[in-house]
Amino acid sequence: MEFELINFFRQRIPKYPCVRVGIGDDAAVIDLDIQQCVITTDVLMDGVDFISSQTSPEQIGRKALAVNLSDLAAMAASPKACVVGLVLPQKGGMELAKRLYEGLLPLARDFQIAVAGGDTNSWDGPLVISVTALGLPPPGGVLSRSGARPGDRIIVTGDFGGSILGKHLTFTPRVWEAIFLYRSYEVHAGIDVSDGLALDLWRVTQESGCGAVVHADSVPISEAACRIVKLEKGKQKPLDRALYDGEDFELILAVPPAEAERMLRDQPLSVKLTDIGEFVAEKGLWLEKGKKRTALPPKGYEHKFT
Amino acid sequence: MEFELINFFRQRIPKYPCVRVGIGDDAAVIDLDIQQCVITTDVLMDGVDFISSQTSPEQIGRKALAVNLSDLAAMAASPKACVVGLVLPQKGGMELAKRLYEGLLPLARDFQIAVAGGDTNSWDGPLVISVTALGLPPPGGVLSRSGARPGDRIIVTGDFGGSILGKHLTFTPRVWEAIFLYRSYEVHAGIDVSDGLALDLWRVTQESGCGAVVHADSVPISEAACRIVKLEKGKQKPLDRALYDGEDFELILAVPPAEAERMLRDQPLSVKLTDIGEFVAEKGLWLEKGKKRTALPPKGYEHKFT
Repeated sequence: MEFELINFFRQRIPKYPCVRVGIGDDAAVIDLDIQQCVITTDVLMDGVDFISSQTSPEQIGRKALAVNLSDLAAMAASPKACVVGLVLPQKGGMELAKRLYEGLLPLARDFQIAVAGGDTNSWDGPLVISVTALGLPPPGGVLSRSGARPGDRIIVTGDFGGSILGKHLTFTPRVWEAIFLYRSYEVHAGIDVSDGLALDLWRVTQESGCGAVVHADSVPISEAACRIVKLEKGKQKPLDRALYDGEDFELILAVPPAEAERMLRDQPLSVKLTDIGEFVAEKGLWLEKGKKRTALPPKGYEHKFT
Repeated sequence: MEFELINFFRQRIPKYPCVRVGIGDDAAVIDLDIQQCVITTDVLMDGVDFISSQTSPEQIGRKALAVNLSDLAAMAASPKACVVGLVLPQKGGMELAKRLYEGLLPLARDFQIAVAGGDTNSWDGPLVISVTALGLPPPGGVLSRSGARPGDRIIVTGDFGGSILGKHLTFTPRVWEAIFLYRSYEVHAGIDVSDGLALDLWRVTQESGCGAVVHADSVPISEAACRIVKLEKGKQKPLDRALYDGEDFELILAVPPAEAERMLRDQPLSVKLTDIGEFVAEKGLWLEKGKKRTALPPKGYEHKFT
C-alpha cells in the first residue's frame, strides 16, 4: 500500500525546478540557487520502530538520528544540521526528552551534524520522534538510486539479518563509508537497507529500469540472523532473514565490474565489502543458487495501511 | 515545563559554528558555506492541534504546512521546500494521506514552497503529521526575536482571539507581509503568534532583554473573540481571549517609532497594522488601561508534561 501511495505522490505532487532529487529516493536535494543542500526526514513511533518498555530513551534518541544519517549516507551526502520534533507522553515527558537527547547528541557529535532546532509537544499518547536532517551533496552531485546499469556488480557493506536482536539500535550509519567510496571509486547507484536487502535492492532496480541477480552463497549472513533462526526453532533459514529482515542500515551499491574488483581487492573500509551478484538488463529480481535461478520476492518491512 | 526543557536544550546542546540562529527562535538558520537556508519543523497531533472527527483531512494537511510557513514568516524568510512525515492510522490511512495532501498542496503552490519528500508510516494510533520547511533568509539576514530595543513600538498584523472557532484552520501565514515589511521598513524583531499574544510578546522581550507595555484599548480584538465569550456566557472578556488565546498566527514586530508611524500611515498591506504599545527598558510585561498599569501574565498555550 505504501508503494501505491508513493506513486500517488509522484503523480499528484508537481515537479519543482529547485528539487533536483525528490520523491522516490532516500532524501531530497534542494537547489538553493547557489548552494544545494540534502534534506531527509524520518518519524519513529513507540510500538513500531522501538518498544519503549524494552528500549532506553538514549537508544531511541540515537536511533531517531541514526536512521536519518543512514539516508544521508545513501546519497553520499555530508551531514550538516538536523531538527528534532518530539511528541512526548504527558507523564514523564520531561525526563524522557532529556534522555532522548543524551542518546542523540553523542551520535550528532560523531557525525558532525548540528542539532539546529526542533519542536516539542506533549499528548495523551505514546512517544513519537521525528528528525529531519540536512546534508551537503558531494562534489559532482549525489549518489542516487537510479544509476545502476546492466553488468554492474551488487556490492554491499557488512552483513544482513537479525537486526531486531540489537543492531537496529546500535548500528553505525555508513556515512563516511559512502562518502569515501563514492569519492574513490566509480559508483553508479546506492541505497541504504532500511526495509530489507531484497526490497531495497528491488527499489534500486525499479529506479534504474533494470533487474538484479543475487548469488545465494555470497550473501553475508550476520551472526544475529543465525541466532534468531535458532531462537525461533528453524522456521526460516538464516539466508531468508538476511534477505528479508529490515533495519540492517548497510549500503547496497551498483559498481562497474573493474571498479568492483578494485574495491574488493582494496577492502578500504573497516567494514567488509562483498559482491553479492549483478544487475541485469531483464527487469525482475532473482536468487541464483548453483546453476538454479528462482524469483526473489521483493519482501521486507512495509508499513501497512488501508 | 516546556520553557524549562528549552533551557535544558540551550545548555546541553553545543554551539555549532554553522548554526547562525538556533534554539530559541522560530526557525534555525544554517550557514551552508556559500548560501544559508532557514529550516523549521512542527509536529501536529490528533486531539491536540486538530480533532480528526471534527476536521477534514484537507484542513489538517493545510494547517500542518501553514504553521511552518508562519514560522518562516517570523524570520522574514522566503519559503523554498518542505518535507512531510506522516504517521497514519492503519485503517483508512491511504485515503487520509491523499486528502491531507489535497489540503497541503494548494497552500504549497500559493506560497511557492516545494514539497520535496517525506516519510510515510502507519501505526495503531491517532494521526500525527510532521512538516519541516526550508526557507531562504532575506538579504542582510533574518528577522529574529532578539532585536527589540526600548522605545520600539509593538506593531501587530490582523486581530486576535477566538482562533479555535475556525481561523486556526484557515489562517493565511503572514509570509509575504513579513518579507515586504522587513524589506520596506526598519524592523528590529519579530515573532509569529502561535501560542498567544501575551506569551509570544513575552518571548520577544526575553530574547531581546527588555520589557513591554501593551495598551489595553489598542489591542485589535477579533469578532471570533467576542463570539466565543458570548458562547461561553461571559466567563472571560474578549480582551482576555485576544491576549491569551493561541493560534492567531499574526505577526508581532518591534519597530522604531518614526518607522512605525510611517508604517501605520502607509498601511501597505491588505491586513491592518496596529500599534499596541511599546518595548521598555524595564524587564517584564504590563497591560496599561487609561493611566493604570498592571502586570500582564505571559499566559498562552503551552504543552504540558511532567
